[in-house]
Amino acid sequence: MRVSVIGGSTVDTPTYERAQRLGQLLAERGHTVVCGGLTGVMEAVCRGAREADGETIGILPGEHRDAANEYVTTPIATGLGDARNALVVLNGDAAIAIDGNMGTLSEIALALNAGLPVAGLNTHDIEGVEAVDSPEAAVEYVGSARR
Amino acid sequence: MRVSVIGGSTVDTPTYERAQRLGQLLAERGHTVVCGGLTGVMEAVCRGAREADGETIGILPGEHRDAANEYVTTPIATGLGDARNALVVLNGDAAIAIDGNMGTLSEIALALNAGLPVAGLNTHDIEGVEAVDSPEAAVEYVGSARR
Amino acid sequence: MRVSVIGGSTVDTPTYERAQRLGQLLAERGHTVVCGGLTGVMEAVCRGAREADGETIGILPGEHRDAANEYVTTPIATGLGDARNALVVLNGDAAIAIDGNMGTLSEIALALNAGLPVAGLNTHDIEGVEAVDSPEAAVEYVGSARR
Amino acid sequence: MRVSVIGGSTVDTPTYERAQRLGQLLAERGHTVVCGGLTGVMEAVCRGAREADGETIGILPGEHRDAANEYVTTPIATGLGDARNALVVLNGDAAIAIDGNMGTLSEIALALNAGLPVAGLNTHDIEGVEAVDSPEAAVEYVGSARR
Repeated sequence: MRVSVIGGSTVDTPTYERAQRLGQLLAERGHTVVCGGLTGVMEAVCRGAREADGETIGILPGEHRDAANEYVTTPIATGLGDARNALVVLNGDAAIAIDGNMGTLSEIALALNAGLPVAGLNTHDIEGVEAVDSPEAAVEYVGSARR
Repeated sequence: MRVSVIGGSTVDTPTYERAQRLGQLLAERGHTVVCGGLTGVMEAVCRGAREADGETIGILPGEHRDAANEYVTTPIATGLGDARNALVVLNGDAAIAIDGNMGTLSEIALALNAGLPVAGLNTHDIEGVEAVDSPEAAVEYVGSARR
Repeated sequence: MRVSVIGGSTVDTPTYERAQRLGQLLAERGHTVVCGGLTGVMEAVCRGAREADGETIGILPGEHRDAANEYVTTPIATGLGDARNALVVLNGDAAIAIDGNMGTLSEIALALNAGLPVAGLNTHDIEGVEAVDSPEAAVEYVGSARR
Repeated sequence: MRVSVIGGSTVDTPTYERAQRLGQLLAERGHTVVCGGLTGVMEAVCRGAREADGETIGILPGEHRDAANEYVTTPIATGLGDARNALVVLNGDAAIAIDGNMGTLSEIALALNAGLPVAGLNTHDIEGVEAVDSPEAAVEYVGSARR
């Protein structure tokens, strides 16, 4: 399945490592990572997935594919700005949010609106988001809750 | 100025009336209402604005302008689906949220992300949203907090 | 009705004057001009429409409404880049093309694809476009061919 | 490199076979096919590419990935309708048009507007499009003309 991973573009080291670990776990289970393709959580989750030979799709806000972080295997340029957040969510079967600010919150809301199961690691406390305390638990949740 | 009004597409009568009152107040102050153009809060706020001869822009998710409620003076078809939420926010100088569910939450998040002042009437409790208890207070807040 | 007017962003004086005249004619007949909101043909047609007190909607590629030319009465920011061309066409009941290059050609094609009547003044020679030789003839054509 | 292949969604057998052959050639040279993900030329080019173990990205107008033809390895749902045409072009380093009607013409125009080399096989005769008479010549042209 595809899992949309959403989170902040600037993160501290523990968050980065948690996102990287999440990417590894998703790839090991054969899942494809979908994300916004840029820095922070987006980079970390792709990096982890690549370490386990996983596939990573980065759906970028800008018009240039080379803005993607180096761990994105399939960059998709959109030129849509913030409207691309809807596409990040649309291309997942489930979502996992880590940390993050308002961009992340908009994606959580769009994911819940679309009926996706959403796990949250140290992120916004929104009704419908399954709060988990580890990357392992996040992967477990989206695997079992899958539509 | 333009005020993006966001809220649920299906609402109870008190919420509808509050949104209608909000539309009147905005129009009386010469503000243009921007919204998603459909039912519920979107219809009520446009209706109120029209009662005070205000202008109302409805930015629709679909491809057909005739999906707009009858109180929209300028319907804009987008065909973008949920990605149109970003455009509703982009076209306001401030935002007021009333009630609403996940679509509304995504717009609140996008508005805060874009740096807009956001007033909230009986809606999601998000840091950065000014919680108010009346349409009057909402209009007051966005008028004074304007960028 | 609404008429999408499409054309080049940099034009010579005769083209500018023709587009301006077109705007006047459309406004005199009570039509609303829809365009891309920027320079060249877009500016000229809005300017002409304003001289006849018409309404003009400018659907902009960027995120900022203040990029609209001064004759746009309702600027709509999209932040969609070239993808906004589809919205310019979607919001007209008919289209008139004047001059223009590849951006204009993409809009002509989208308009024909959507089944809109399209008049062309000194523009691309595409099957389905009614070639006309004056603003008067363009307005006449879209008025009579209206869906 | 990535090559955006654009063309009609309903095609005759010779056109289908030409598009299929094109897909094979692109894949054999290590290129990734980008297309609209649906039927006709889009299906044929993906099918040919898959026969040579190539990668195929299908950028879909709708919200559901399962609308992609069976030869798309990476479907991307957009929910943008016709506005997705801009994304098909944005994600190629060059474009090849085969047959096609107005949707295809809009993509040719967007591709030329973006500065991409464009080869055309039995398609619209537009200045800037290199008219070729075989899939081999098309692949040759975009390979040599690459930006």
